[in-house]
Amino acid sequence: MKQIVLTGDRPTGRLHLGHYVGSIKPRITLQAHHDCFVMIADTQALSDNFDDPKKITESVVGVCRDYLAVGIDPTKSTVFIQSMVPELFELTSYFLNLVSVARLERNPTVKSELQQKRFADSVTAGFLCYPVSQAADITAFKATLVPVGDDQLPLVEVTNEIVRRFNRIYGKAVLVEAEAILSNVGRLVGTNGKAKASKSLGNAIFLSDSNEVVRQKINSMYTDPNHIKASDPGRVEGNVVFAYLDAFLDDKGELDDLKSRYQKGGLGDTVIKSILNSTIQTLLAPIRERMGLVKDSDIKDMLCEGSERARAAAAHTVSEVRDAIGFGYNKQ
Amino acid sequence: MKQIVLTGDRPTGRLHLGHYVGSIKPRITLQAHHDCFVMIADTQALSDNFDDPKKITESVVGVCRDYLAVGIDPTKSTVFIQSMVPELFELTSYFLNLVSVARLERNPTVKSELQQKRFADSVTAGFLCYPVSQAADITAFKATLVPVGDDQLPLVEVTNEIVRRFNRIYGKAVLVEAEAILSNVGRLVGTNGKAKASKSLGNAIFLSDSNEVVRQKINSMYTDPNHIKASDPGRVEGNVVFAYLDAFLDDKGELDDLKSRYQKGGLGDTVIKSILNSTIQTLLAPIRERMGLVKDSDIKDMLCEGSERARAAAAHTVSEVRDAIGFGYNKQ
Repeated sequence: MKQIVLTGDRPTGRLHLGHYVGSIKPRITLQAHHDCFVMIADTQALSDNFDDPKKITESVVGVCRDYLAVGIDPTKSTVFIQSMVPELFELTSYFLNLVSVARLERNPTVKSELQQKRFADSVTAGFLCYPVSQAADITAFKATLVPVGDDQLPLVEVTNEIVRRFNRIYGKAVLVEAEAILSNVGRLVGTNGKAKASKSLGNAIFLSDSNEVVRQKINSMYTDPNHIKASDPGRVEGNVVFAYLDAFLDDKGELDDLKSRYQKGGLGDTVIKSILNSTIQTLLAPIRERMGLVKDSDIKDMLCEGSERARAAAAHTVSEVRDAIGFGYNKQ
Repeated sequence: MKQIVLTGDRPTGRLHLGHYVGSIKPRITLQAHHDCFVMIADTQALSDNFDDPKKITESVVGVCRDYLAVGIDPTKSTVFIQSMVPELFELTSYFLNLVSVARLERNPTVKSELQQKRFADSVTAGFLCYPVSQAADITAFKATLVPVGDDQLPLVEVTNEIVRRFNRIYGKAVLVEAEAILSNVGRLVGTNGKAKASKSLGNAIFLSDSNEVVRQKINSMYTDPNHIKASDPGRVEGNVVFAYLDAFLDDKGELDDLKSRYQKGGLGDTVIKSILNSTIQTLLAPIRERMGLVKDSDIKDMLCEGSERARAAAAHTVSEVRDAIGFGYNKQ
């Protein structure tokens, strides 16, 4: 049976290899067999970028271009802009009554994000409540599968708590619990070896980077600081080039061979970087080519049709939710 | 110049004399000179009645009947149901980013309501955030006047903080600050002398109470426990009957005379209760009569037309808000 999948991205810059390997590539597989809703989460991005909305609005089109280039197929996946489905705001409001402030403050994702964010001392209500907004996103489409990183598992838990609470209080099984699908690849490190490749840290290879920029970023990658000469034995763990080869080199036999040669000594950084470069260029070449062919009207069509389809689905759920609460006045 | 007024009631029961004297009567005056939006706040009522929505939905029609009976004129006032204007949910979501959790927790109204509420240990996010929802209600209609009790002044302050913050961050004076109009009558005590006449405490005289029920409620009112015989001197302060006479007896000369005779001794409780009874019956008789004439279709028409008008006004504001943030995709 076809399941319903909700996935998406916060539009705060173009997509990079971290997105590709962690969520975009699995999404291409998922769309073949499931009903996928792909949300461009502008409202959610606003919760910690409310004072810089241009960062969001200027990224929307770029993210769509990346989607089309990478193979997200608008005839299979429903791609939409979160704020174009205002029903999500309504669901969020109802759900806010079903979660305690204490529960939201305990959420480890919120806790850890708070530590990273600049406004730790002045947490906004919007930021505290974003797991509730996510619950609205997931339930509005009755998604049963939600691809997430392991740090987002608690958010799916909050969603399912809200679902159970809603269905119990309002006496109807209107909402559906969702299952998290954990990505089987760990988070891709940044080109500088920092824990996370991210737009804001400037240490990511973007799908839209040119051939030359990709080559430069790979050349600048950290390897093993003690691997001075090619003949020295080198470390594979913590070596950014091998982290990327782990993620992108399909031939695992070749990868194992490279690792053991590198560890023994006799394999230079230039060689492994060259192999990584040709691997990534091979991956990106067709994406880059399709990116050049994407027309503005393709993006517009995808967003208009997608947001319309998404809105119809969400409106159907909101109508059931209102009926369950008793707010179906317009039908009386 | 006509100002825009936002006022309303939480539909958690029929309207009583406390509503009448504190907010309904001034509203009748306001509607003659201003554009009044009268909101039946079902969504807000849900924030602390989420597990008993019937209490809300069953009250909506009754409150409308009371409105029409008491003289709210749908050709002058726009009466609408909060949840029928979903634009309010959207504004709330944007505004949540403009208020800190700490600010909401400091709100004295929230603090004091928390002490009264049964869920003090498990405050819901919806309850914490209801001042933000109120800010959406006020600003959606660009209300410049908001009649409130003194306990609600801080809510208008939060609204104006949000207005200033929004206009500053998004660079456009889209939202308008509101001025609180303080009711010049204090809160009406309950018939049992408790601080507040309220639906939930069962100590209120409803506009829809029959002649006989009103008489019984007045007869059961607390007076001065030491005023045993009519000839005893009696206390006026803390005497529920005099509190009601203060609020409802228009002839202040007669009132002063009654008070001094009661204080001296020689005026029995039966007499003052009888005077209060005839005062209240005179007030309620025409209301009761009009209440019997209100047709279901009058209520339906008022709500349909009102909610449509309110929605158009709110949609206009939301459109400006989206443009200011940069979320005006549908116009591109």
